[in-house]
Amino acid sequence: MPIETLRWTDSELVIVDQTLLPNELREITLATEESVWEAIKSLRVRGAPAIGVCAALGVLVGARERCAVGGLSMRDAALAAADYLATSRPTAVNLFWALDRMRRVLGAASPDSGDADIFSLLEAEAVEILAEDKRLCRAIGEHGAPLIGEGDGVLTHCNAGGLATADYGTALAVMFRAHEKGRGFRAYADETRPLLQGARLTAWELQKAGIDVTLICDNMAAQVMKEGRIQLCLVGSDRIAANGDAANKIGTYGVALLAKAHGIPFYVAAPLSTIDPSLATGDEIPIEQRDAEEVTNGFGRRTAPVGIDVYNPAFDVTPASLIAGIVTEIGILRPPYVESICKSV
Amino acid sequence: MPIETLRWTDSELVIVDQTLLPNELREITLATEESVWEAIKSLRVRGAPAIGVCAALGVLVGARERCAVGGLSMRDAALAAADYLATSRPTAVNLFWALDRMRRVLGAASPDSGDADIFSLLEAEAVEILAEDKRLCRAIGEHGAPLIGEGDGVLTHCNAGGLATADYGTALAVMFRAHEKGRGFRAYADETRPLLQGARLTAWELQKAGIDVTLICDNMAAQVMKEGRIQLCLVGSDRIAANGDAANKIGTYGVALLAKAHGIPFYVAAPLSTIDPSLATGDEIPIEQRDAEEVTNGFGRRTAPVGIDVYNPAFDVTPASLIAGIVTEIGILRPPYVESICKSV
Repeated sequence: MPIETLRWTDSELVIVDQTLLPNELREITLATEESVWEAIKSLRVRGAPAIGVCAALGVLVGARERCAVGGLSMRDAALAAADYLATSRPTAVNLFWALDRMRRVLGAASPDSGDADIFSLLEAEAVEILAEDKRLCRAIGEHGAPLIGEGDGVLTHCNAGGLATADYGTALAVMFRAHEKGRGFRAYADETRPLLQGARLTAWELQKAGIDVTLICDNMAAQVMKEGRIQLCLVGSDRIAANGDAANKIGTYGVALLAKAHGIPFYVAAPLSTIDPSLATGDEIPIEQRDAEEVTNGFGRRTAPVGIDVYNPAFDVTPASLIAGIVTEIGILRPPYVESICKSV
Repeated sequence: MPIETLRWTDSELVIVDQTLLPNELREITLATEESVWEAIKSLRVRGAPAIGVCAALGVLVGARERCAVGGLSMRDAALAAADYLATSRPTAVNLFWALDRMRRVLGAASPDSGDADIFSLLEAEAVEILAEDKRLCRAIGEHGAPLIGEGDGVLTHCNAGGLATADYGTALAVMFRAHEKGRGFRAYADETRPLLQGARLTAWELQKAGIDVTLICDNMAAQVMKEGRIQLCLVGSDRIAANGDAANKIGTYGVALLAKAHGIPFYVAAPLSTIDPSLATGDEIPIEQRDAEEVTNGFGRRTAPVGIDVYNPAFDVTPASLIAGIVTEIGILRPPYVESICKSV
């Protein structure tokens, strides 16, 4: 059974604190808007689809809080909560997409709706976003599973698993589904510095699912490819431009280049909500820069000299020309993406 | 002033324990042959040239010990010590090269030499290997410095600095020399998982030398290149085959492929003793496999699930076709390497 990454139970937002994995599987309740913001910012919850779902549920937390404490109407409280949560992380478009859906609920609600009615409408929408995400992940898995051949090695980077979504993943959904169908293959998980989502989360999810998985450091990917161990690369995405350029965790672009050099197909798996048709190319995708300490001091001890300059972009953009296909809930989009994306979103 | 990575003082072998850097600069005395072997194996001393020098000096430690304790002649004791130290690490050819030089001293010594005479001959040779290494590094720096242009960004991987040699480095010697000549440039240091030689050692050495240096995670190299920040890649090597294929720290091959994709010249810097003309191609270079714990447990706490499979090759081989030149103490060797190497060694 996949992990329930986040859930809305008895009017409470509960998430798995992913910063503690794989050593501890602990759920925490996000009781305030600020704790939701902090959980997204500090990657207690991460992965583009999961961030979207968490933000939608976070609007409920924030609206209730601002309405009770700040004396705002539920409508104004929800709008303020959405604006606040939008500042947590800049790259994953699913965050803004989910918040826009919540705003649209407010726009469509009758002007004379009471606070309780407004909250009910918001709650229904957020819960639907969560349920939808689960369905989309299953569909992505179904469409992508045939990409994995018997005996293949499949390399993934970062974590696009159940932990990055409501429960089944995007890139890992493809692996989960292929495994359920009895396909025998071996996954290779890049550890994904600096925060090691591959080592901590992907390796853990695949191991739990009974899939053969081998952990490597990011800088071993080229060698593993050269040795003929990889037949497919499969990653998630945080934002895809109208031309198919795809932002994902830093290091993904390098994997795509190495895959090309070795003649290995490179696929992105993501729901259509990850596509941002307002951006013509990936050059327009904002790239989050994160603290130097993630690199110099990430794991309980200092591993670099004091005062050293650090460059720590959290994402990079893989040009569409390196992407063989984008696995979505409606099927695999193929180049030219300008056309296949335009028809789909 | 560069660090004195290792020295022979008052008949004692003293090294900087590189596993403690950058948090602590501590010298340790290697008083037994076993401690020399352990220091090489556990990377207290590392870097192909430094391993060679340490092994040569280690023969002195081992010969003295085996002669005193084991009752062997100094000649037999030295041969046994050399055989033992040769088992410490398999990839860097400088280890075997230095031990062969020590063996040749024994072969050339008069059969009726006494133990003290034999030891003196061995000591003179080991001390000469150390002194030579210092001279070679300076010459490599001199020949390579013109490769760095004003305003360039120079990417390096792992540590090919003073700490990898007797005192000035190979790839970093080129940077040190360019800096001494007043060239303004910025170095980028890959952190180099799993053991973080780039973060712990290269960043520290360059910072100490007053060179602008930015630390990045290995998986950021492609992005940094894409942003136009890199004009030159410069790395060391542990063994170079007769055709120019060069083994170096895992991740180097990937950097070379990424450099090619971005049109950036990729150079190797190494003394001629790193060339192993007995190997026709890099396919014959033995690649050391290291413990999974380096990957799963490297930062003072566990960062991967218990029981996970890990692939941890310590080196990879960059094909000669990706190497623009090999900076040696006699100048820059250029393709075709089969010819330029044949003429030089």
